[in-house]
Amino acid sequence: MASESERIELLTRRFAERGGRVVRGIGDDAAVVRGGGVVVTSIDAVVDGVHFERATTSLRATGHKAVASALSDLAAMGVAAGEVYVAAGVPADVGDGDFEQLVLGIEDAASACGATITGGDLTASPVLWLAVTVVGHAEGESEVVGRDGARPGDLLAVTGELGGSAAGLRLLNGDVEPSAVGAATAAALRERHQLPSPRFDAGRALAGAGATAMIDLSDGLARDARQLAAASGVSATLRLPDLPLAAGVAQVAAATGADPAAFAAESGEEYELLCALPPERLSEARAAVEATGTALTVIGELTDRSGPGSWAGDGEEAKFLDRQGRAVVVAGYEHFNRTDQ
Amino acid sequence: MASESERIELLTRRFAERGGRVVRGIGDDAAVVRGGGVVVTSIDAVVDGVHFERATTSLRATGHKAVASALSDLAAMGVAAGEVYVAAGVPADVGDGDFEQLVLGIEDAASACGATITGGDLTASPVLWLAVTVVGHAEGESEVVGRDGARPGDLLAVTGELGGSAAGLRLLNGDVEPSAVGAATAAALRERHQLPSPRFDAGRALAGAGATAMIDLSDGLARDARQLAAASGVSATLRLPDLPLAAGVAQVAAATGADPAAFAAESGEEYELLCALPPERLSEARAAVEATGTALTVIGELTDRSGPGSWAGDGEEAKFLDRQGRAVVVAGYEHFNRTDQ
Repeated sequence: MASESERIELLTRRFAERGGRVVRGIGDDAAVVRGGGVVVTSIDAVVDGVHFERATTSLRATGHKAVASALSDLAAMGVAAGEVYVAAGVPADVGDGDFEQLVLGIEDAASACGATITGGDLTASPVLWLAVTVVGHAEGESEVVGRDGARPGDLLAVTGELGGSAAGLRLLNGDVEPSAVGAATAAALRERHQLPSPRFDAGRALAGAGATAMIDLSDGLARDARQLAAASGVSATLRLPDLPLAAGVAQVAAATGADPAAFAAESGEEYELLCALPPERLSEARAAVEATGTALTVIGELTDRSGPGSWAGDGEEAKFLDRQGRAVVVAGYEHFNRTDQ
Repeated sequence: MASESERIELLTRRFAERGGRVVRGIGDDAAVVRGGGVVVTSIDAVVDGVHFERATTSLRATGHKAVASALSDLAAMGVAAGEVYVAAGVPADVGDGDFEQLVLGIEDAASACGATITGGDLTASPVLWLAVTVVGHAEGESEVVGRDGARPGDLLAVTGELGGSAAGLRLLNGDVEPSAVGAATAAALRERHQLPSPRFDAGRALAGAGATAMIDLSDGLARDARQLAAASGVSATLRLPDLPLAAGVAQVAAATGADPAAFAAESGEEYELLCALPPERLSEARAAVEATGTALTVIGELTDRSGPGSWAGDGEEAKFLDRQGRAVVVAGYEHFNRTDQ
């Protein structure tokens, strides 16, 4: 088995290619990257037994998902992916083949988003963990979309389709049989959960089309809508029947006894984007997102928190309505517990 | 005990202060920071049982050292400290008091260097680990000093005094009694090992005074001198008798049966800076470093690897000479095993 030093040497050569913004990469005390006007940075960590189970997740999926989920935070700021720095704690029983799979997953997830692996640290550890720092660049602050810019009257819209990640997890866990949705759909749902794709193109399109606030759906729509509303100081009303569901989600939800839309609203690790949009920008935004190959669906709107007719109290920044317009309790996904940086 | 969510909320408030370059900090998907021309980034991780022992190291020292050692990589590039992003895996048995000590150590080490805690991630983990990403900014690439710019004929010089970290470790481990050096010196050496201070001021002074290459001494002078020489494609000759030793190092080394200078050359986690300097810039560089309150000592020089009289083969980029000019084997410190990014 390769020693840690040998692995580091291999990785240093493997990720040595430079270009674009990267002036110095792996091999010096630090990487040097040409910046634009602003640098957008986020760090995310995953730990075996907390965010994934080594026993049931391939090393490739683990590496892929750790990097994809970290990069998704940049997509949600509306900036392009730049550089990725990965620190990994790798137990002694991860053999060369498994280590290669871990690196492949990391590499694939980064390159799928146009990001460069620019640095890292590899250490022994009794438990497998990854900490991924992602960096994007923008010419100016005004190009970056935070969570806090939404205004009363804005629409809430979501990219893509929801529920696929939770449905894939139920299939992976064996809670639901593939026959409930058919083999091809089951495979797509499993992949959706294991190998997520951040929505960089859609994020940039939405930033350009006037999105006032944006967040990626990592903790589930129910929680993330609350976070966006809270950060913006507004109330969110979402209509469950308007949620766009991925193929097979209705059947998987039904097989677990759940309402399909509530199931989708609680599904974590979706990595779709939820954004706030002034109504007059909707058609432009939809066209721009559709040009990236993704749908944009209006699922609710934002209202004043303190004005006449306001309903939201502390911790109640978002409510979900059913087909009859009744408020429905949707719990949200507590898998991650983090600062979201 | 505070839950993870409660701790995250507390940290989000605690590190909410912005200013300077930081436009958006903790609380959004990513931090937004105004860049200069280039962004300098490094990631470093430490794991309980690998880089420190929770049983014998305070949480405060653990947090401090993790951040200080990561920041030292920026000091070695000759840039100022900017932002710090900390991911932490924290076991359930770390109580609120210990967690507060960990955060205090992180906070102190960052603020001592003028760095801002700008983001983080906190997760449960069966073992304590920290991954620290540090970011600095410079107006242009030419302001940044790598490891690879040294030329034949350059002098090798080191900031401060060496051997204190290894001596402190021997005292902490009980290998050597404090009476060997006296109580005050013993305390200073222990602190030197546990609460290191990156040499930011000296690093910037050296960058401004024409240093052609620079590296921080994390793996020990013996290894780090080899790394600088290898990256620059030159050979390094170092004179053991010229090494500046910290007070008490000679006594601690003698008590362990080691040659004091070899002991200092093998001492890891010193976080002094080793730099290459054209001889004609030495007096300017020394004055600039001394103005920061630190000494600069010439300890060797660099020569051509392939020219007439060259002696270095692969893996022999550095040699140490004793008082009689004889080559001495100095092993170097293998504590860290990392990509140094």
